Amino acid sequence: MGRWEPGARERLERAALELYVERGFEQTTVAEITNRAGLTERTFFRHFADKREVLFAGQVEVLEACANAIAAAPEAAAPLDAVAEALRTLSVRLQERRELSRQRQTVIAANAGLQERELLKLALLASAMADALRRRGVAEPTASLIAEAGVAVFKVAYERWIGEPGGRMLADIVQDSFHQLKDATAGRT
Amino acid sequence: MGRWEPGARERLERAALELYVERGFEQTTVAEITNRAGLTERTFFRHFADKREVLFAGQVEVLEACANAIAAAPEAAAPLDAVAEALRTLSVRLQERRELSRQRQTVIAANAGLQERELLKLALLASAMADALRRRGVAEPTASLIAEAGVAVFKVAYERWIGEPGGRMLADIVQDSFHQLKDATAGRT
Repeated sequence: MGRWEPGARERLERAALELYVERGFEQTTVAEITNRAGLTERTFFRHFADKREVLFAGQVEVLEACANAIAAAPEAAAPLDAVAEALRTLSVRLQERRELSRQRQTVIAANAGLQERELLKLALLASAMADALRRRGVAEPTASLIAEAGVAVFKVAYERWIGEPGGRMLADIVQDSFHQLKDATAGRT
Repeated sequence: MGRWEPGARERLERAALELYVERGFEQTTVAEITNRAGLTERTFFRHFADKREVLFAGQVEVLEACANAIAAAPEAAAPLDAVAEALRTLSVRLQERRELSRQRQTVIAANAGLQERELLKLALLASAMADALRRRGVAEPTASLIAEAGVAVFKVAYERWIGEPGGRMLADIVQDSFHQLKDATAGRT
């Protein structure tokens, strides 16, 4: 077995999510994950700090990508539209992970500690986007309000994407949800 | 010492918050809290399940009060306005607890586990308000979007209330923040 197993990270993630769904997150061991993936524990720990990290890896990249998208929005873009565009870009990247996302959500919904960790992830996303808005010159509290509202929209859209039987794209659901928020805040519901 | 010490709950809460700020949440014991409050551990455990509970007591009452306020809003009220009114009512109740709230926020900000728990509390508030909106006939995803956006507004307003040196009322900051969200979603920023 080579030191850098090709596709090891993805195989470990898939094996871990399957086991978390089948047996529960708490009950699953790293040894079981590596057995199912046909890899060693050394390889596991080269990719993930622990079994919880499998569910929360890539978070820094998400924050950076969203902050960069806000920075790159046209100068004339309204702050809420810059946030909407950042979350649309994130949604496009998540689209191919729908089945993994669905498994992940099942695991998180079954464990209060993981739910709290997931909420922290969303709070950090709001904080990173508020920072990016302030760097565009958006004043407080507007920057925080828009970033928090944007994450609220994304959270609701993401849950619909996971839960709906149809095959709607996450990016489309996010876009619709921003329109619905605008309608609702304008009293058009 | 009588079995039901008058004001015991408040004395325990004040002693606990002081100690959490001075020594850190993790380092403080229930024995230290009861010593400072001049009460017994038995009395402490009659009021709180554990030392974390001191920071999160009364949560069920908050959810119920907000759900009831949404139910009691005039039939013609827009859903966002019903949510804003519920959070304004909550804010009036919190106003007299400003110093305690400030201490509590300091403690929570210093501890990742407590931050996650606080976020769960806010997520449960959004969920309870979305339920209350659905019972008023508001359809999904609008009910969830408005409830989550309302909590986002409250979160930002609450942090300003805690952090601002001036003596503005929380209810006023909440009301202003709802206006600012409306302006922002209408592109008026």
